[in-house]
Amino acid sequence: MSDGAPRRLRLGMIGGGRGAFIGAVHRIAARLDDRYALVAGALSSDPARARLSGRDLGLDPARTYAAFAEMAAAEAARGDGIEVAAITTPNHLHYPAAKAMLEAGIHVICDKPLTATPAEAAALAGVVAASGKVFVVTYNYTGYPLVREARHLVASGALGGIRVVQVEYAQDWLARDLEATGRKQAVWRTDPERAGIGGALGDIGTHAYNLASFVTGLELAELCAETTSFVPGRRLDDDAQVLLRFAGGARGQLWASQVAVGNENGLKLRVYGETGGLEWRQENPNELRFSEFGGVTKILTRGGPGQSGTAMAATRVPPGHPEGYLEGFANIYRDAADLIVAHLEDAPVPESAALLPGIAEGVAGMNFVAACVASHQAGGIWIKP
Amino acid sequence: MSDGAPRRLRLGMIGGGRGAFIGAVHRIAARLDDRYALVAGALSSDPARARLSGRDLGLDPARTYAAFAEMAAAEAARGDGIEVAAITTPNHLHYPAAKAMLEAGIHVICDKPLTATPAEAAALAGVVAASGKVFVVTYNYTGYPLVREARHLVASGALGGIRVVQVEYAQDWLARDLEATGRKQAVWRTDPERAGIGGALGDIGTHAYNLASFVTGLELAELCAETTSFVPGRRLDDDAQVLLRFAGGARGQLWASQVAVGNENGLKLRVYGETGGLEWRQENPNELRFSEFGGVTKILTRGGPGQSGTAMAATRVPPGHPEGYLEGFANIYRDAADLIVAHLEDAPVPESAALLPGIAEGVAGMNFVAACVASHQAGGIWIKP
Amino acid sequence: MSDGAPRRLRLGMIGGGRGAFIGAVHRIAARLDDRYALVAGALSSDPARARLSGRDLGLDPARTYAAFAEMAAAEAARGDGIEVAAITTPNHLHYPAAKAMLEAGIHVICDKPLTATPAEAAALAGVVAASGKVFVVTYNYTGYPLVREARHLVASGALGGIRVVQVEYAQDWLARDLEATGRKQAVWRTDPERAGIGGALGDIGTHAYNLASFVTGLELAELCAETTSFVPGRRLDDDAQVLLRFAGGARGQLWASQVAVGNENGLKLRVYGETGGLEWRQENPNELRFSEFGGVTKILTRGGPGQSGTAMAATRVPPGHPEGYLEGFANIYRDAADLIVAHLEDAPVPESAALLPGIAEGVAGMNFVAACVASHQAGGIWIKP
Amino acid sequence: MSDGAPRRLRLGMIGGGRGAFIGAVHRIAARLDDRYALVAGALSSDPARARLSGRDLGLDPARTYAAFAEMAAAEAARGDGIEVAAITTPNHLHYPAAKAMLEAGIHVICDKPLTATPAEAAALAGVVAASGKVFVVTYNYTGYPLVREARHLVASGALGGIRVVQVEYAQDWLARDLEATGRKQAVWRTDPERAGIGGALGDIGTHAYNLASFVTGLELAELCAETTSFVPGRRLDDDAQVLLRFAGGARGQLWASQVAVGNENGLKLRVYGETGGLEWRQENPNELRFSEFGGVTKILTRGGPGQSGTAMAATRVPPGHPEGYLEGFANIYRDAADLIVAHLEDAPVPESAALLPGIAEGVAGMNFVAACVASHQAGGIWIKP
Repeated sequence: MSDGAPRRLRLGMIGGGRGAFIGAVHRIAARLDDRYALVAGALSSDPARARLSGRDLGLDPARTYAAFAEMAAAEAARGDGIEVAAITTPNHLHYPAAKAMLEAGIHVICDKPLTATPAEAAALAGVVAASGKVFVVTYNYTGYPLVREARHLVASGALGGIRVVQVEYAQDWLARDLEATGRKQAVWRTDPERAGIGGALGDIGTHAYNLASFVTGLELAELCAETTSFVPGRRLDDDAQVLLRFAGGARGQLWASQVAVGNENGLKLRVYGETGGLEWRQENPNELRFSEFGGVTKILTRGGPGQSGTAMAATRVPPGHPEGYLEGFANIYRDAADLIVAHLEDAPVPESAALLPGIAEGVAGMNFVAACVASHQAGGIWIKP
Repeated sequence: MSDGAPRRLRLGMIGGGRGAFIGAVHRIAARLDDRYALVAGALSSDPARARLSGRDLGLDPARTYAAFAEMAAAEAARGDGIEVAAITTPNHLHYPAAKAMLEAGIHVICDKPLTATPAEAAALAGVVAASGKVFVVTYNYTGYPLVREARHLVASGALGGIRVVQVEYAQDWLARDLEATGRKQAVWRTDPERAGIGGALGDIGTHAYNLASFVTGLELAELCAETTSFVPGRRLDDDAQVLLRFAGGARGQLWASQVAVGNENGLKLRVYGETGGLEWRQENPNELRFSEFGGVTKILTRGGPGQSGTAMAATRVPPGHPEGYLEGFANIYRDAADLIVAHLEDAPVPESAALLPGIAEGVAGMNFVAACVASHQAGGIWIKP
Repeated sequence: MSDGAPRRLRLGMIGGGRGAFIGAVHRIAARLDDRYALVAGALSSDPARARLSGRDLGLDPARTYAAFAEMAAAEAARGDGIEVAAITTPNHLHYPAAKAMLEAGIHVICDKPLTATPAEAAALAGVVAASGKVFVVTYNYTGYPLVREARHLVASGALGGIRVVQVEYAQDWLARDLEATGRKQAVWRTDPERAGIGGALGDIGTHAYNLASFVTGLELAELCAETTSFVPGRRLDDDAQVLLRFAGGARGQLWASQVAVGNENGLKLRVYGETGGLEWRQENPNELRFSEFGGVTKILTRGGPGQSGTAMAATRVPPGHPEGYLEGFANIYRDAADLIVAHLEDAPVPESAALLPGIAEGVAGMNFVAACVASHQAGGIWIKP
Repeated sequence: MSDGAPRRLRLGMIGGGRGAFIGAVHRIAARLDDRYALVAGALSSDPARARLSGRDLGLDPARTYAAFAEMAAAEAARGDGIEVAAITTPNHLHYPAAKAMLEAGIHVICDKPLTATPAEAAALAGVVAASGKVFVVTYNYTGYPLVREARHLVASGALGGIRVVQVEYAQDWLARDLEATGRKQAVWRTDPERAGIGGALGDIGTHAYNLASFVTGLELAELCAETTSFVPGRRLDDDAQVLLRFAGGARGQLWASQVAVGNENGLKLRVYGETGGLEWRQENPNELRFSEFGGVTKILTRGGPGQSGTAMAATRVPPGHPEGYLEGFANIYRDAADLIVAHLEDAPVPESAALLPGIAEGVAGMNFVAACVASHQAGGIWIKP
């Protein structure tokens, strides 16, 4: 490889075999900027499926593993072993898989929520700290350029002190008991053994909470949650409504629902401060509305006039050429590559890479879920997360 | 007058003099369908302003009163006295003004919130009952054709059993201490002596709550509220965030804010049921989004294909010719005229008139505000309204 | 009447009886600001329908006329005769009705297009000039506050020299041969005897052309038109596509269609200059998009920050409380009242009234239609209007 | 490589070196689905820049060529030479570069417009035919899933016979003489020596024309064009307005502009038939509006309910997870890979690959530009393309 091209990292994948959803997303995200070479995988807990999935991807059969522990051992022993592993399994495997990789000296990019339980999250934080390795959680919505611009606006004081945060994430795909049909995505997400303590809370509520935190920088002080399992027989929440009290006096509401008929992937954030307000919708992510008190509302566009360097760094094509979910996800991967390379080369961390959600954000997400569950179980009381 | 034209009612107005906002709205609403003749007024508590305001409107000086009590007495004594009074004063005068009118045998159309306190609301309910007169509260957003269509859809079962209600009413005009500048609209709305116990809660929260109730028909069982006065020195709430538990299991969130920078008059309702969902925004009131689970989202339009008779009855011009705030308000007035005429002529009440918000809805609104205030004062506990 | 109230004008109406559409719109528009008293009418060319329509409106039977000529004579002879007549008939009656009124000394507010033919338009211009009376054409879309703001922006140089104008008016109600069902609105609009030389061109193309002229102030130099009657058997155009060359070098396109399935009343204007651009859609008339080269797009709102005095004068309620078609139409009526009163009292014409479309704009509209027809008939050549 | 993975093609790139825009887009598009390995390049006509650009991309220096002719010869001589070349140069090099590749037995993916002149286009058609190789033109907007759905809807008769086509492509980046600043993208696009006979016409007008043709399947019979160079000193058109007559009676308008201030990349298509209409906007490409006469408008979503197999085949992630410009572009590349593999393996062409724009569409685009230029030069007459 010419020394002019950015370094490509050897990547292994855990989960993401045939029938999975998010694994394919991770692979495209990893490919988009050519910063990774997928060379190994433990793609399924079913050995036959793991093998076939490896063939689908053109992996070397010798590096197509039946189990992640096996991959950790074998790859660590190779001179050209994987440098980083992407974990795309159901939630209950995040902790053991991440632990295995980190202890084998392999950096980790892990899907959200961090783990199945807050106890696992705390344990994982210890493992990460002990390992000294890079750990990234794919709160991928923070990869959108205009989300980074929104963060920049708040941080730069363009809204004044924050007063109100409204965040919501509405879907409808679980409005019926899809799990009864055997559809894989639904089955594990509604099963406490595999999803963990949160249903909609864990799957999308953590995204919403992280997004609000990322953009505003506010610390959550207390919350009061009402969670519901609307579909008869469902064991985990499919709707959660939460009041938020932030340190410093800001107040907010969070809504996560997978039964809101007519919503596909309705993640939306609104932030209001003393002097300004902003609004961003994931389903039309190339626009950010920004208002200053007494002025007219402006439509900021990805790549358009006045965008900060941070936002521009996350942008690939000119304004009006829409970027979407995969590009935002790919920004996480590109920044993770920069972060890992900086680590490998003991070089300074680039500004964008410093924005990446890591173990702390992963733990905060699990604590948020746990606090919501506890609040609700106590009849809807205020709880510190 | 030819017996072919609908009967015009003699109308008196209380409040709405120079410098007022909502009084002019009531007058346009009353004029739009030619069902009222404004013939008398107690337009201001300031006698000079009352007189000048009467001149502005071309009222007979003999029927331009300095006080509503005087108007009640004088008009009741005339053979051609007013049949109905519109009350458009600050909140604290709603109760005494309405009482004076009703006890003088005059029907009442009263602005919201019903009164300044729940105690007054309860007392007024007694007065209305004793009077046998028509009493309408101008929860004007129920006059929008597509709001009535939304109600029709829910009632007809098009959404299945309701699960989630999301309602919000966001403005920004009080994001700074406008009251310090002396602007009349802000001064009385932030003054507990005149506005009553609720700030944003009373001014717009009651609208939001009423809208959700009107469309869904759900009964509120419990609420948990977080209210804030963000602007330093303000004595009433300017932001309120509320969790709602409805009888029968539906859950919801309500947000009312007058400090959400970038929002002009952002009243929005979303309702999700077992099989369908709908969304309506007051700022673009000629569209109603309706989704059935598994189907594509449809944009229903005012006056467009498939609209119910109820919605069509509230529509004046063809689809694509936008109707707005004043037309919706005028529907309340037109229906009120129908209701009063039915009362006067001992005739059946037309279907649309039966939809009008009355004393019960007014009382419910005050109880909602009181419950929010009590919940918040107790630290954010669940309360039955 | 107190001398404090604006003068109310005595109004007679021609056309607008039972089954009509635009007559009811004119009546609401006239009522909205209380500047007119409807006291007489020649509401239908069918005497029985005229009589019944008068009863519907509560007119004095003695002033409910069977023919406009009769109304002109009788009202001119009364001391309290009408001061102004609203003409809301099918197009072919505009000329004789207007002529009768003007020659009887009655001011005229006339629906569009001005007449059935350009020859009539020219003749009417002579009649108006000879009469010395006020003549207003209800190009009602010029009554929208944000249309006036758009004109103000162009006139103030905010866009620099104009380069491109894109205007369109798309509907779909004539996508099938509705006239075969006997529906009154369709029957006369597709009949050359009553509609005149233009179909979609006359009915909505004139609106589009006028809107573009009103906002830009540009003079049309040449046009090239392609018109079509898509519905088999239809004798007038139901779709017209036109290239426009303006004096000074600006270029543009106009599209008027009544067969564009999915469009209700899609009037839209876009104007682009050397340094700025703007966009306005009638179906969401409370927003105006304005862009400056190199800047972000701003959403100007009716009544919102930065609006000119001209736009504010046409605004009744605060931003976020949508105004619509009827309010825009009412602005024409209010301004017409101001204009007539200024004429009657020999007083200066208020600024807004000076914006009213009159006989010149009516004639220009007819010349535009005639030029389109001629261009098309010649195979699609460039023609000076 | 496992035989389970789809075959990866060896790709060479012509143009797309440092400072270029579209080359990077092609590379991401080629990577997204892992169907290509970029192994060679003639990345710039400046040898130093070519070498450095190759280093940036990690190319083998031995396969980083200073000229495309050199690349054609050298690669054709290798056993592992490139199988396909992507041409991403300014327009005037498309013809010689494509000719060189095809004659060396290399398949070609070529950017649009096809060539600089219609004569070159005709010549290239001969070369392609003689070569027997695959030739794809990156009219990338046909890669959007909902564009393919739109085509499917029209072809399936959901709109009835087509009557009206409205297509536009509006940008503003050339509203000033950006070429005077030396910005590379602007310099060559406004230079007839490199861009060819069309300015906005060639750069974006061909996209608009192709999109309309792709979706409707209509054949253009005649056109009448008005083209303008608004920016003083510019030698090519920066705005083009065109009337379209299609065989079979449909009529349409096309507008392409690079001076429409406030527009970033505003490609929009509307198609109206006897029974239905549809509307698609490139800037929000995950929605397609579809209306049936007499029904309400439906919002079809990418990946959502009711999508055809054709559209689903072009979709990577679930509805609500927006895909954009790069994914659409990548669909062209993926389909091209399928087409080339089918050619190499003498296998049937997959359905999606059969949709790819090829030499015929490229020639049609050049003929469209040439006809517009000729029409305008003749004063705006109707011309057969």
